[in-house]
Order: sequence, then C-alpha cells, then structure tokens
Amino acid sequence: MDMKVALDTLWVLVAGMLVFFMNLGFGLVESGFCRAKNTVNIISKNFIVFAVSTIAFFAIGWGLMFGDGNGFLGLKGLFFLGGADNSPAVGDAYSGVYSAMSWTGVPLLAKFFFQLVFAGTAATIVSGAVAERIKYISFIVFSFLLVAFVYPVTGHWIWGGGWLSKLGFWDFAGSTAVHSVGAWAALAGVLVLGPRIGKYAKDGSVRPIPGHNMTSAMTGALVLWLGWFGFNPGSTMAADPNAISHIVVTTNLAAAAGALAATAVAWALLGKPDIGMTINGALAGLVGITAGCAFVSPGSSLVIGAIAGGLVVLGVQFFDKLKIDDPVGALAVHGIGGIFGTLAVGLFAQDKIAPGTTGNGLFFGGGFSLLAKQAIGVAAVGATVFTVSLVLWLLIKAALGVRVSEEEELEGLDVGEHGNRAYPDFVQTETVA
Amino acid sequence: MDMKVALDTLWVLVAGMLVFFMNLGFGLVESGFCRAKNTVNIISKNFIVFAVSTIAFFAIGWGLMFGDGNGFLGLKGLFFLGGADNSPAVGDAYSGVYSAMSWTGVPLLAKFFFQLVFAGTAATIVSGAVAERIKYISFIVFSFLLVAFVYPVTGHWIWGGGWLSKLGFWDFAGSTAVHSVGAWAALAGVLVLGPRIGKYAKDGSVRPIPGHNMTSAMTGALVLWLGWFGFNPGSTMAADPNAISHIVVTTNLAAAAGALAATAVAWALLGKPDIGMTINGALAGLVGITAGCAFVSPGSSLVIGAIAGGLVVLGVQFFDKLKIDDPVGALAVHGIGGIFGTLAVGLFAQDKIAPGTTGNGLFFGGGFSLLAKQAIGVAAVGATVFTVSLVLWLLIKAALGVRVSEEEELEGLDVGEHGNRAYPDFVQTETVA
Amino acid sequence: MDMKVALDTLWVLVAGMLVFFMNLGFGLVESGFCRAKNTVNIISKNFIVFAVSTIAFFAIGWGLMFGDGNGFLGLKGLFFLGGADNSPAVGDAYSGVYSAMSWTGVPLLAKFFFQLVFAGTAATIVSGAVAERIKYISFIVFSFLLVAFVYPVTGHWIWGGGWLSKLGFWDFAGSTAVHSVGAWAALAGVLVLGPRIGKYAKDGSVRPIPGHNMTSAMTGALVLWLGWFGFNPGSTMAADPNAISHIVVTTNLAAAAGALAATAVAWALLGKPDIGMTINGALAGLVGITAGCAFVSPGSSLVIGAIAGGLVVLGVQFFDKLKIDDPVGALAVHGIGGIFGTLAVGLFAQDKIAPGTTGNGLFFGGGFSLLAKQAIGVAAVGATVFTVSLVLWLLIKAALGVRVSEEEELEGLDVGEHGNRAYPDFVQTETVA
Repeated sequence: MDMKVALDTLWVLVAGMLVFFMNLGFGLVESGFCRAKNTVNIISKNFIVFAVSTIAFFAIGWGLMFGDGNGFLGLKGLFFLGGADNSPAVGDAYSGVYSAMSWTGVPLLAKFFFQLVFAGTAATIVSGAVAERIKYISFIVFSFLLVAFVYPVTGHWIWGGGWLSKLGFWDFAGSTAVHSVGAWAALAGVLVLGPRIGKYAKDGSVRPIPGHNMTSAMTGALVLWLGWFGFNPGSTMAADPNAISHIVVTTNLAAAAGALAATAVAWALLGKPDIGMTINGALAGLVGITAGCAFVSPGSSLVIGAIAGGLVVLGVQFFDKLKIDDPVGALAVHGIGGIFGTLAVGLFAQDKIAPGTTGNGLFFGGGFSLLAKQAIGVAAVGATVFTVSLVLWLLIKAALGVRVSEEEELEGLDVGEHGNRAYPDFVQTETVA
Repeated sequence: MDMKVALDTLWVLVAGMLVFFMNLGFGLVESGFCRAKNTVNIISKNFIVFAVSTIAFFAIGWGLMFGDGNGFLGLKGLFFLGGADNSPAVGDAYSGVYSAMSWTGVPLLAKFFFQLVFAGTAATIVSGAVAERIKYISFIVFSFLLVAFVYPVTGHWIWGGGWLSKLGFWDFAGSTAVHSVGAWAALAGVLVLGPRIGKYAKDGSVRPIPGHNMTSAMTGALVLWLGWFGFNPGSTMAADPNAISHIVVTTNLAAAAGALAATAVAWALLGKPDIGMTINGALAGLVGITAGCAFVSPGSSLVIGAIAGGLVVLGVQFFDKLKIDDPVGALAVHGIGGIFGTLAVGLFAQDKIAPGTTGNGLFFGGGFSLLAKQAIGVAAVGATVFTVSLVLWLLIKAALGVRVSEEEELEGLDVGEHGNRAYPDFVQTETVA
Repeated sequence: MDMKVALDTLWVLVAGMLVFFMNLGFGLVESGFCRAKNTVNIISKNFIVFAVSTIAFFAIGWGLMFGDGNGFLGLKGLFFLGGADNSPAVGDAYSGVYSAMSWTGVPLLAKFFFQLVFAGTAATIVSGAVAERIKYISFIVFSFLLVAFVYPVTGHWIWGGGWLSKLGFWDFAGSTAVHSVGAWAALAGVLVLGPRIGKYAKDGSVRPIPGHNMTSAMTGALVLWLGWFGFNPGSTMAADPNAISHIVVTTNLAAAAGALAATAVAWALLGKPDIGMTINGALAGLVGITAGCAFVSPGSSLVIGAIAGGLVVLGVQFFDKLKIDDPVGALAVHGIGGIFGTLAVGLFAQDKIAPGTTGNGLFFGGGFSLLAKQAIGVAAVGATVFTVSLVLWLLIKAALGVRVSEEEELEGLDVGEHGNRAYPDFVQTETVA
C-alpha cells in the first residue's frame, strides 16, 4: 500500500464527512431562525436536499463539472462516474477523462464524495432563503436542477479546468464556487416567491419575525463552524501538514473575528448584542475566508473575518430595505460574504504563503491585476447563476407553482405540506402573521 | 514507529468515535419520535446503555465473541481482555487467544474500542422499541445481559471465527450481526411488554401517537448518517484507500436512495411526505447497505437503499397491523432492513469488487448458493437471539417486572422513574393517552 | 513529504477539532440545566467565549504559556506567535523560542490550534457556574483576561517547561491545567456574584431550580464525551498507536464508570436516578481520568471514574450546603473532579504503562512521593488561579458591574441583555423565582 495515498484518502474522506455534517448545521440554523409552525417543512427540505444532491451529482453533475471538455463545461465521462480513470495516479501518470482532478492522488470515489458534499452545500444554502412559503416539491425539483446542471457548470469554470481557472481566478475552497452560487440561486428564488405574508407592512415598515429556537440556531452554527474545518483545509485534498495547519488557523481566526465584529456592530447599531447577528457574523467570517484561507496570513484572516462579520449586519438591513425577504440571512452571509471573500483574495493574498498560486494581492504590492480577475469571476458566476436560476424558478412556477396557498402559509407549512407537527406536545403562541 | 500500524489505528479509532456518536443519534431519534412526558426516561436509557455496554463488553462480551474457542463461542481470554495477545502483529506473526481479529494490524485496545461501540449499537436499538412503558432498571439489566452474553455469541458465529463465517456467510459491517440482533431482542421485549396504553383501540383501529420533537428526530438522523461513515468504512479496520472510498460512497448512495424512496412511497400511500418516513427511510437504506457495502457496486447500492427505504413504510404498517407496538419504527428499520440487507449480499455481490470474499450473488451470475447461506445466517441468528431474549425478558419480568404502572405510564415515565421533567418551563398539551 | 509529520499533524488537528466541538457540548449542557428565560444569554456566552479565547490566546496567551522564559512564565515570542520557530523540527534539531513544545513534530500552527481549543475549554467552564445572573460584557472581559493572562501562566508551570513540570508534577491532558483552572476561576466569580434570587430561602432550605431542556443537556453531554476522545488521546500530539488506543479506552471506561456510579449514588441518596446526576457523573469521570489517562491501567480507570462519579453527587450537595450557587454543577464536575483526577495519578500511576514518566503511584508501590508532588500542583494552581481571578472579578465589578439588575434577573437575561427570546413561539410557565 502506498502510504501517501492512504493518508491523503483518509484526510479527504474525514474532511468530506465533516462537510456532510454541515447539512445538520444548515438545518438547525435555518429552522431555528424560522417559526415553529414551519419546522417540519424546513428540516425536511434540509434533510432531503442532500439525498437529491447525491443522486443529481452522481448521475450528471460530477461529469459536467470535472469531465474533460472545453472552457465552459465537461463533455466526457458525463454520467454516473462512467468515464475512464486510473486514480490515484497523478500528473503524467494519470490517464482518464477527469484530468482536472488529477493533481490529487486519491481514488476516484474519494474525489467524488468530497465534491458531492460541496455540491450539497450549495443546494442547501438556497433552502434557508426561500423558507416559510415554498412548496416542498418545487424546492426538490429546483435542487435537483441546481446540482445537476447549474452548480457544475460554473464549478467547471473555476475548478474543472475551465476559463476562469485559466484566467487566473483563485477560489481555494469556494467562496464563489459554492457560497455565492447558492446565494445567487436563492436570490432568484426569493424574487420569484416574494416576501412572507406580513413581513413588510404597507407603510413600508419591516416587521421582525423572530426565530422559534435559538438553541437550534446556536447548535447549527457550531456544527457549521466544525464542518468548515473539513470544508477549507480539506480542499487541499492531500494531507499536507503545513497547508492544513495554516488553513485551520486562518479559518478559525476569521470565524472568531466575524462573530466579534458582528456582535459589536449589532450592539452599536441595534443597542443590544443580538444572538442572530453573533451567529451570522461567525458564519460570514467563515464564508469570507473560504476563498483565501490558503493564500492569506493569519493576521489578514482576522481582518477579512472582521469585515465580513460587520458586513453581514449591514447586509441584513440592506435586503430588508429592498423588501427582499430572506428569513435566515443567507443572502447576507453567503452572498455578500462570498463576494467579499473572493475579492479579498485580490487584496490580501501573499505569494510567500502559497508560492506559485495567486501571487500578491493589492495590499501586498501585487497591484490591481489579481483583484480585477477576482472581480471578473464574481461577476460572471453571479450573472450566470442568477439568470439561469431565475429561468428555472419561473419554469417551475409555471409547471408546479412555487408558493403554498395563503391559508397554508398562515397555518404553517408543516401541516399543509407534510401532515406533521414539529412539537405537538407543546402549547404554542399565536405566531407572527 | 510502523507507519501502517499508526495509520490503521488512527482510522479505526476515528471511525470508532463516529460510531460512538451514534448513541446521540439514537437518543435523539427515539426521544423525538416519542412524547415529551417520556423524554427524560428515553434519553437516560440511551445515555446509560452505552455505559452499561462498556462494562459488559469489557468484562465478558469481548472474550465470548473474539476469544479462541469452538464454532459457537469463545473460550479463551474471557474476562477483561485478559488473554495473551501480541497485536498489532498480524497473520502468522500473531500469537495470542484473539486470533479471529489477527487480520487487522492495530493494537488490542483499538480493536476492543471499535468492537465495543458496535456492541453498544445493538443494545441501543432495543431502547426505542420498548420505549414509553419499560421500567428503567429492567432495561438496564437486559442491556447488560444482551451485551455480555447474547450479542457476543451470535457475533462469534459471524465475526469471531464461528460456524457462520466458516459456512461462507458474509456480513461486512453488521446488518445481521448488529442491526438484526438488536431488532430481534427488541421484538421479544415488545411482545413481553405489550403495546402502550391507547395505541390500539378496541375496534381494531390504530391510533397515531405523534412524536414530540421533529427537530430532535432530524438531528438524530443526520448524526446517525454521519456515524455510519464510521460504522461501514471503519469495518475495514485498516486504512485501505480504495475500500474505504468505495464504502463511503455505497453507504451514502443507499442512504440517499432510502430517504427518497420512503418519501415517495409515503407520499403515494399516505398522501403526504411524512417526515418520520423520510428519516426512517434513510436509516433503513443505511441498515440495508451495511452487510454489503464492501461487496456491491455504487449502482447496486442505490437499488438496495431504495428497496430498504420502500420496505420501511410497509414494515411500519405491517407491525401495526399485528398490534406490535414499536414507537419509533426500530423493528422496521433494523429488523426488516437488516434482514433485507443481509439477503441483498446474496443478490448483488460482485466478485470483482472484493475479490476472494463473497463471489457473485444471484443477479451477477453466482446462482443461489450465496443467497442460501445468507438466508441460513439470517434465520439462525434471528431464531437464537429472539428465543434467548424472550427467556431473558420473561426472567426479568418475574424478578423485577418490566412495565411501569398504568398511572405512571399515563403521567409519563419522567416523573415516575426519574423525578425529573424534560421541559418544565413549557406549557404542555394533554398528550395522547 | 515526511509521512510521520503528516500523520501526526492530521491526528493533532482532528483531535483539536473534536475539542473545539466541546464548545457545543458545554453550551448545551449549561443552557439545558438552566431556565428557558436565560437561554439566549447562556448560549451567546458559550458561543462568543471561544471567539474571545481565540483572539486572547493568539495575541497573548500562547506566548506567555509556551514562550521560552523562566519557571513562572514565558518571556519570548510573546505576541501573535511572533517568535522564531522551525517546527516541525524536534529535539536537538529544533531552533526557536517555543522549545517547551519541541517534543512534538507538527507545524507551529497545529500546535497553536490544539492548545487554543484547550484554552477555550478552561474559559467555557466558567460560563456555566456564573450563569443566570452575570452581565454579558463582564463575562466577555473576564474570559479575555483569563485566557490571555491567567490560564497561560499556570499552564506554563505545567506544560510550558515551568517549575511544576520540573518538580515532577504530571497532568497528561489537563485535570488541573484546564479543568481545575476553569473551576477555580468560576468559584471566584460565583462568590463575587452571589447566588441567584430565590435559590437559598431564608430558612436555610435549598430550592431546586430545574433546567429547562434535558434533551439539550443529554446532547451536550454526549458531544462532550465525543470531544474528550480528542482532548485526552490528542494530548499525545503524535499518532502513537499504542498510546492513543490506551487513552481512548481509559477515557471511555472512566466515563462509563462515572455515569453508572453517579446514577447509583443518586438513586441511593435521592431515591431516583436523577438525569442530571447521570450526566454530571459521566463528565466527572472524564475530568477525573484526564490527568492520568496515559499513566493508569484500564482497570484503574474504572475505579477512578467511579469515584469521580460518586463524588460529583456529594459535591453538588456540598456546594449547596455552603450556599455557593452553581447552576450546572461545574464546580463539582471540573473542580472536585479535576482535583481528584490529579491526585489519582499519585495513587494509580504505573511505571510500566508509560515508562520514564510518572513512575509508580502509591497503590503500585511508589510510595507518597508522586502523590505529594501532585498535591503541591493542585494547591499551587488552585491558590493562584482563585486569588488572581478574585481580584479580576472585583476589578470588573468596580469598573462595569458583574450582576444584572434584580428586575432583569427575574424577567430573564435574554430580553435584558440581548433583546431576544429563545423560544418565542412556545407558551412558558412561570419559572421558578
């Protein structure tokens, strides 16, 4: 047995398991931030979305993303991992149709598992933003289409050997490839759905709709933080001790700084340290460092995390001002955080940290070149995913409808969509709206 | 330091930790599917059962299961890991009394830990089926006896060098050795206990008793899914990169297919996608792939998972028709899923996937030979565990009683058994029955 | 790539991630054992304390603890990991200012991450004991000071090459260095704060204030138990297969014995098997084995765990008799458990288990020498941490106040401190006091 292959595989799989566990994190943060009457629906969505993603990515997505092809999409070995592949052979010894992944010396199924849990993450980001009014079947259909066709195409551009990777765009673990993609797909959905009943009053005021379970939300956030220790350092896809130690530390520093900055900004702006902002600040710090975790210093990661954390408080208010109703703040966390994090590579990257990759960013003497390429990637991926998602949501709306009835929304989606109640033994208050 | 030993040990221990974590998964699924008034009792059972299993397996179970002996039980090194052993020496270099485990080159205490968490799993499966009416002390006593004497004997047949392993019966990670054993022991307990008050009306109708916390149930299910990434690939007990990558993927595909199939079948039969069925479908897919995860292709794992997921919906209805009251569906998930998964090896196994093990199953040209041996194992283990468990439950009933008083059952076991309430700050509804 | 460095790094980082996850465990145990009206405050404290610890240990704590210096504190490379260091070089090949950590061959940032999560644990222990009446800002400030200045100084004595390590005091994974430190700092805080309103009646009777969510508490306890599989075996900081297998097993046996012993003692003394005692018994067993996990036999670990579990029941009653109000039992678990565990090394250590370290303890023919040194460490660390913490708490009290107003305490800290409610959709009972 080749020890290096074994060790790398172990690391990739364990990291992938941690990323898988993020499904729980998203499920708990999203349901905790929503009302009790919609809990079964939300956690059902979060549970089944990974099952749907598994099938979609196995059947179609993997091949489109990592199959050899042109700059825009994969064209070989498209279905069910069916192409030739002699992994764990690497470099010149590799012979197969998934050559964009030939830099990592682990078995094909290990590559697939790790990439699958990333695809699932993009899909699950959507679920929070569209919560409390979307039809279950419509969410399932959109998730399948997203993971089968949309995510893998922009993913091909970035990680599959496509045009953005050739341009010199860097996104180490997916601030754009995963998080922004999820957020743009969600934004399209939110616009098609419209806000929840009662969220925006006719006089223009915004009505807070508090989440039903802060214990869930906190639990989910810590599970996500843990999962990010797979997400970012696992993206080495090799047990490189210096790289993964570095990335664990930058990831953690950014999360800490994000939590503290968001808490401070919320305390200053809102008067009290709102727990939702503390949690979303940590998550924004994590999203923000995802693109650059391997390219920036620990000190820079503190700054990146703090900015992302501060931005999330402003972002939540920004979307509310536009009457874009995102019950859990996913657009601020993954959208704004993902955009900022990708641009931050262009600002904070240092050649000496990962020689031969990004080169220096603006703040370290590299000029605007890298920053410009990062901006191109942000814009191209955003425009594409938003546009295609909008079309898909509109098609689904025409075919199946996207929104539950007003009666069902008021009663709660748990009974209407699932015939279940989440907490039948407890007396509940009349919930908002 | 021998690097291979170190790497294998790391993998076995980390996988064992994931399996340990399944105690949380079972605790949350089971308590979530039951009523609030019995929550303290259920989670106390799920918490203490692993402590009891630890003592029982350390003191007695390990030796009976893995000690050198005859085809039926271990006879050497019976107590407290007290036999000679020079692990991590393997094969001919091994010298000791636990030779059935001499194929894996990790220290004895690593072997013990990994096997202990499996034994604990079998015991915790029982707890769900007998929930909401069993006396705490009686459950503790049964758990001790199960892990000390019952589980290790049939385990010896399968994994300890006993007659089933010599026959050519294959159960890679324990669809039978762990899951069915737990289910048969549970079935005996359920029959001795009888159904919960109010579950089956005199007119023959079945009264649904909804669980009190779907957030708990979903959390538990995702923790179990995570834990299975230790359970199945960890059963390699070596960091074999191809095998563990393969098993991670077959395990995940079966879970996904199980969740989707159960959701679809429930939607068709019950009219709505019941969250309990979605969750139990995923778990049934996991149980179903446990025996064959190393022997079947990814494509076959999809089929196995889907069938197991569909069966669980029918299984829950089947047991209710027989008035066998299992509050959480454990008999359907672990019993039917375990039996089906073990037989599925006889149908879907392919020699090329793990050469020199199962050979081909029926669907791949191997004829009925393997299937017949799998059926023999299923029947022999089932008959033995059920019979012995029935005797044990009846002895416990005679000595200590097994069921709480009617008053206590109506009030809830939390106050009666523990003097605690799970949620004293919340106003509760009058719960069913 | 040096395979040993890679493997050791992987283990240290994965173990550190498990310890990080203990933040969730503490958050759920502590909030579960407290009232619903204080839940947001408690989980906010548990969430932000790790962010604060990250900054404090990165900026200052690491250098004070591990920088080369004298017997009392580090003096070189004090800030932001800024000193020279050529890790993963070890032994004579090491050249740098953090030579107390030069025995482990992993990158500097891996050492930092693992030590950071330990520092965070000490801080989070405080949060439970001071819960339900402390001001949020005051807790944040104390946590920063504890992790920046107090924990690293006594840590330097024990693990940083200071006077206790030179004396021959042994604390493998931190019964004293982490757990007792947290408990002594908490005790000082509890004394400065005083008991919660209504806890101790004027007639001297103790009023039980039941926790609001036993599901949370059980979940937290199992997350902590899992986390300890990083905490104790990870303290090898190397993938030594025999040592980590041994430590996993001693850790688990002690936890199991602690849970069972506390349950039995509670059953005998209180009449019923209180779930809070079962949980705290397991945790006390874990704290108790932390110092000696690498130095004692599996059999001894059972005894140590059982004694620690029994002590916790008595300890909770002891502190209540003194009117020292600790809502979650942290002083009994981490204080008494930590002291006992450290002394237990002096009783149960066996030279043959880790040759060249502790030598034999009293019960294995080593006489009183080791026990005396252990007692010196317990006393010196306890006196120092308690005294310094008391001064810090009093300074904070003078500067910011430490306790919320009586009105806020009665209403719950969630609204007063955070403007949030944890469970707004549920009707709550009038809580105690």
